Amino acid sequence: MDIKLLEVDTLESALEKLHKKYRAAHEGKGRSSVEVEKLPLPKCYNRVLAEDILSSENIPAFNRSTVDGYALCAKDTQGASDSLPVFLDVVGEVKMGEAPDFSINPGQCAYVPTGGALPDGADGVAMVEHCQLFGPSQVAVYSALSFGHNMVFQGDDVSQGQTILKKGRVIEPADMGLLASVGKTEIPTYTPWKVSVISTGDEIVNPSLNPKPGQMRDVNTYGLIGEIQRLGLDVAGFRLVRDDYQMLKDGVMEAAKMSDVVLVSGGSSKGKKDVTEEVLDDITSGGVFVHGLAVKPGKPTILAVDEQGRIFIGLPGHPVAALLMFRLLVGGLWEMETGGSPGLGAMPHKARLAVNIAASPGRKTFQLVTIEDGLAVPVLGKSGLIATMSKAHGYIVMDINQEGINKGEEVEVWPL
Amino acid sequence: MDIKLLEVDTLESALEKLHKKYRAAHEGKGRSSVEVEKLPLPKCYNRVLAEDILSSENIPAFNRSTVDGYALCAKDTQGASDSLPVFLDVVGEVKMGEAPDFSINPGQCAYVPTGGALPDGADGVAMVEHCQLFGPSQVAVYSALSFGHNMVFQGDDVSQGQTILKKGRVIEPADMGLLASVGKTEIPTYTPWKVSVISTGDEIVNPSLNPKPGQMRDVNTYGLIGEIQRLGLDVAGFRLVRDDYQMLKDGVMEAAKMSDVVLVSGGSSKGKKDVTEEVLDDITSGGVFVHGLAVKPGKPTILAVDEQGRIFIGLPGHPVAALLMFRLLVGGLWEMETGGSPGLGAMPHKARLAVNIAASPGRKTFQLVTIEDGLAVPVLGKSGLIATMSKAHGYIVMDINQEGINKGEEVEVWPL
Repeated sequence: MDIKLLEVDTLESALEKLHKKYRAAHEGKGRSSVEVEKLPLPKCYNRVLAEDILSSENIPAFNRSTVDGYALCAKDTQGASDSLPVFLDVVGEVKMGEAPDFSINPGQCAYVPTGGALPDGADGVAMVEHCQLFGPSQVAVYSALSFGHNMVFQGDDVSQGQTILKKGRVIEPADMGLLASVGKTEIPTYTPWKVSVISTGDEIVNPSLNPKPGQMRDVNTYGLIGEIQRLGLDVAGFRLVRDDYQMLKDGVMEAAKMSDVVLVSGGSSKGKKDVTEEVLDDITSGGVFVHGLAVKPGKPTILAVDEQGRIFIGLPGHPVAALLMFRLLVGGLWEMETGGSPGLGAMPHKARLAVNIAASPGRKTFQLVTIEDGLAVPVLGKSGLIATMSKAHGYIVMDINQEGINKGEEVEVWPL
Repeated sequence: MDIKLLEVDTLESALEKLHKKYRAAHEGKGRSSVEVEKLPLPKCYNRVLAEDILSSENIPAFNRSTVDGYALCAKDTQGASDSLPVFLDVVGEVKMGEAPDFSINPGQCAYVPTGGALPDGADGVAMVEHCQLFGPSQVAVYSALSFGHNMVFQGDDVSQGQTILKKGRVIEPADMGLLASVGKTEIPTYTPWKVSVISTGDEIVNPSLNPKPGQMRDVNTYGLIGEIQRLGLDVAGFRLVRDDYQMLKDGVMEAAKMSDVVLVSGGSSKGKKDVTEEVLDDITSGGVFVHGLAVKPGKPTILAVDEQGRIFIGLPGHPVAALLMFRLLVGGLWEMETGGSPGLGAMPHKARLAVNIAASPGRKTFQLVTIEDGLAVPVLGKSGLIATMSKAHGYIVMDINQEGINKGEEVEVWPL
């Protein structure tokens, strides 16, 4: 038993080993680890940017009006008011989408629509609502404008040479607009890993079947399919395999052909874990380097990488553990490799703990919670039950040395 | 001008009107508003559940072991310890995936693997690590177990007749596992609306082109394509149309054929707004019912619904406003119609404001912010610039009657 305990890794060391093994295998192949593809802009939502994006232009490319009004020299309007307008000569009209072929001198103005280019010399725009036309060539302006009022200057949005988005950015809707504004329509993004899921266990049946006594339906495959999509990765395939060395080996090898990551779930009993470990070790030519994790839940987790840099993970049978370990290990490595930093939506929320909770000594502990009236409330129920995870809003992490957290303390709740 | 002001709606009243008009049109058609389709479970991630889901079974269907060990009567182990084991007779072995054909009486036990069914009479499982086999038929148990230790009871996860997920639930990975566990593999979900985007404006060019002086690239279409996907809706198509009544009308009518929602973006100048409004009103037979919003940014927003219940929205040209109004109006109506309540990731984060900010009197004000060291910092830069939105982590909402918020006050930051 002591020997077994020594073989257990912390989550951090397991992830570091996984990163090193993955990198080493890919460097051996002489190519970058995660593949990069150019995608048309409309397909880039939620993809990870694989290069820094620089703008070769100023945006806007010209001084632009943000209102319908009269482009003018702002200082001409000093002292203007509702009762005391300033009179300016109208010297032209800017047409939408065209560059004006005239300029504005003090005492002059020109009509410009929203989005129109300001003539040279103009440094402010009076809204039509604050102006009154006197004949075809004179306008009374009833408000005083400051420099740059109702306009944006060339380069205000993006300046030439500026890095508008950094490598590793998870592309959000506004980023897509920003990329369009600088003329980037084919975007270098990381190709999502293809992930296969294999569920094993003689007691496990396809969810469309009625289990016989002693059997139960496959839960982990479907939870994992959701988690794969949640991370923005691709589901390469999924399959239920009987709990037999040769059948499992055949299934894993078949899945590996079309996958960057192969998950084997359901081998948490001693015997099953051994079969999974044996199969993964054989397939990867001795590539199993993590045999268990000091994590609760999630101990019976096995990691291997083959010579081609494909990742093989034996996940716990316990559904909550399987989903969490997938997220932390595959999601963790994906973020390390791509630099992908998800937005505010993936960040933890602060909440105060509603009751005392205990950690498991010597293990990093994950506690599912709901958030109710700003308080983090642990989700009761024995571990391993998928309903508890479905009910939870998120989870709290307690470090390996932590004994627990007291009621009323502030905690970080990571969204599920 | 006063008449125009009277025509402006609050965001809340606009959304309420939109809801009523949408409902009325759909009730006239005699069918439910948002269509429902049955989807195979693996395709359900992030879809909205269209019915309550009840379980017709107990999950687990039998008392199940959570460890490899010996099923026994827990009270037999009272007082057992490392130095003083309890001896029990081994009366059988449970096979994985099979129901045991024997039961356990006091003084007896049986081997059971993780996930195996407990024999009748057993109410606890001693882990193999805490047991020692003496010959083929006797086991020494070195630890005292409480009732139900290392096992889950029939119905612990889900009890028969229980509603496991409610209509309106946005399906998360754990929910997919839960649905699988109760044998639901074809899931009733709301069919995402098909949304078309039309950008209009003579100064607007396709982002793959180099704009001539006075022209600029289409930003809103690509930001909106991202927002549509972010809401889980479908992009039906997108198109750039010249700023002309007939061309816009043709474009909108063409788009409407394949859409539940048609967005027209880029008509924010007075003249353009009028054309957009005229087109939408003509197409919907006088269906325009909102002519502007008391919102900053977002004032020039137009809403119409046609007799078939299709939604037409004239969005501001201002990209930040266009994206926000789409999210609040289309996203708002989608949530009202489906009951869709997104998870913790879409909930606002609490932060303290780094500086004083002012609201716009008489308008609901949206202020973009970043979160830095737990402080909400307003994103500087003139409104209307897409780079400001790309930079921001989220936004703060100030109500129509609010004058502003002081530095240090706690605010809610909604993720972008």
